[in-house]
Amino acid sequence: MAVDVPSLVSAAREGAPRAVARLISLVENAAPEVRQITAELCSARRAEPAHVIGLTGSPGVGKSTSTAMLVKAYRQQGKRVGVLAVDPSSPFTGGALLGDRVRMQDHATDPEVFIRSMASRGHLGGLAWATPQALRVLDAAGCEVILIETVGVGQAEVDIASLADSTIVLLAPGMGDGIQAAKAGILEIADLFVVNKADRDGVQATVRELRNMVAMVERPWRPPIVTTVAARDQGGDDVVAALAKHYEHLSASGELARRRRARAADEIEAIALTALRASFAGLRGDDRLDALAAQVVTGETDPYRAADSLLAAVRNT
Amino acid sequence: MAVDVPSLVSAAREGAPRAVARLISLVENAAPEVRQITAELCSARRAEPAHVIGLTGSPGVGKSTSTAMLVKAYRQQGKRVGVLAVDPSSPFTGGALLGDRVRMQDHATDPEVFIRSMASRGHLGGLAWATPQALRVLDAAGCEVILIETVGVGQAEVDIASLADSTIVLLAPGMGDGIQAAKAGILEIADLFVVNKADRDGVQATVRELRNMVAMVERPWRPPIVTTVAARDQGGDDVVAALAKHYEHLSASGELARRRRARAADEIEAIALTALRASFAGLRGDDRLDALAAQVVTGETDPYRAADSLLAAVRNT
Repeated sequence: MAVDVPSLVSAAREGAPRAVARLISLVENAAPEVRQITAELCSARRAEPAHVIGLTGSPGVGKSTSTAMLVKAYRQQGKRVGVLAVDPSSPFTGGALLGDRVRMQDHATDPEVFIRSMASRGHLGGLAWATPQALRVLDAAGCEVILIETVGVGQAEVDIASLADSTIVLLAPGMGDGIQAAKAGILEIADLFVVNKADRDGVQATVRELRNMVAMVERPWRPPIVTTVAARDQGGDDVVAALAKHYEHLSASGELARRRRARAADEIEAIALTALRASFAGLRGDDRLDALAAQVVTGETDPYRAADSLLAAVRNT
Repeated sequence: MAVDVPSLVSAAREGAPRAVARLISLVENAAPEVRQITAELCSARRAEPAHVIGLTGSPGVGKSTSTAMLVKAYRQQGKRVGVLAVDPSSPFTGGALLGDRVRMQDHATDPEVFIRSMASRGHLGGLAWATPQALRVLDAAGCEVILIETVGVGQAEVDIASLADSTIVLLAPGMGDGIQAAKAGILEIADLFVVNKADRDGVQATVRELRNMVAMVERPWRPPIVTTVAARDQGGDDVVAALAKHYEHLSASGELARRRRARAADEIEAIALTALRASFAGLRGDDRLDALAAQVVTGETDPYRAADSLLAAVRNT
């Protein structure tokens, strides 16, 4: 079925949830229309794009609950909010491993809130490729704030920091060892630390440890530490206030523009790599790669020389 | 310090552990010598390369203990054994998340056993790029069997299946839900199911569930199910016997040659992609990508058109 991209994009611009959902699906599935969708979306940018907020943390710290709390806090300010929940998914089933979106149902019928789960897939450039485009759809739909929630496992943390304007690292008390282990990493990406489950034992120790870490930061922005109890909806306004301050800092320092250019560069690179990978995939059915592989197996050539031949072939296509 | 690659490779061929370790380090760190190392290693192949066995499973099923048990069983057959433990590592610390290699110390002083932990890194093509080369080093060192142990999280499972001749999926009793969730995936990659901790409750149910799954397999090789208690060194010989049968099947059916060609094709592709990525990285400091990114931010162009320009630039370098 042909997709009427211009109509779909104008409907999304008017905030029609089904159009937004459809566009994100097309983007996520790498549909042939993606190129046209992107061109349409880029053709008319909002003067003030959405504030993109990344939220990451280990399993069990309360990411979904915290996201729901932030949505509520932003809604009380009358802002239109988008949520992208990016889950590492099994490469086999294509389904998300995490499922607990129950608390989000509070917002399920609010027409000013767009919620979308995306599977990050295992494939090359998966998150880097689809997420910026999904952000662009939500931005076009008039979201003033977009929250990207991701589980903090390995590379995903790095990715989210490169996608977001502001990155929240969520922690919970009693994770002392975790903080130690992740020290360098979370300090590098966090614009804001939120210690959730602050009604539990050990919250003081966790905050103290974070304070000691943050004291070593020599960048102009020293990440603040906010405590919350998301399950009881406590602290959401403090987080929103800290995020607003960070956004001001980003704008005033020129860092916002720098981050957005870096994000665009990442996206361009991801699209280019995907295109190149597709050229390789085209060679898969081709005799050339098969012949090269057979020569490597027999020892006639080595993989580096074979790769040179392959690159020469791709460059000439 | 200059590396004398030919001497290092001949020392490794004689089974000198330090030469083997050095070569794997060079490969893992993507040293400039890797191309020469690969060429040297490929120049003289053994007629009968090592049987590469992948072992994967969720955390807690006893992968390290099982690997140690298999090493022991193969050593009793007088075989030289290599072990690659591929751990998903934090992109931040560069260190491995898993550390429990205690049981492996039984073999730490055996000159016929080569054990190596590799960090899979988060970076593009990490596992796909370094592991085949590390396998080649162990193969040159005369290993008749190479075990690759990896934690079964997401993409790693897929990778290991494409790297190994035979893939063991390790399970433990009481993981019924896990089996259900992973059904399609583990059926796709497993050449052999091992239910470890078979002295625990629920082993019958797990075996029964696996049997029902395996009954649906329509490929020529139906994965056998073996039970073990690796912590008490029970069942290692059964696993080794099942692996020998699978290897016979692979050889006789032509599947072994097919898998090795596919592996070589993957490796060639990974090397080519890494080279291309390096061309992009070279453009990072360049005005071109920066200028394109700035144009995307202002809406002058869209990322797809920018990617086209970037590709044109890379193709002309």
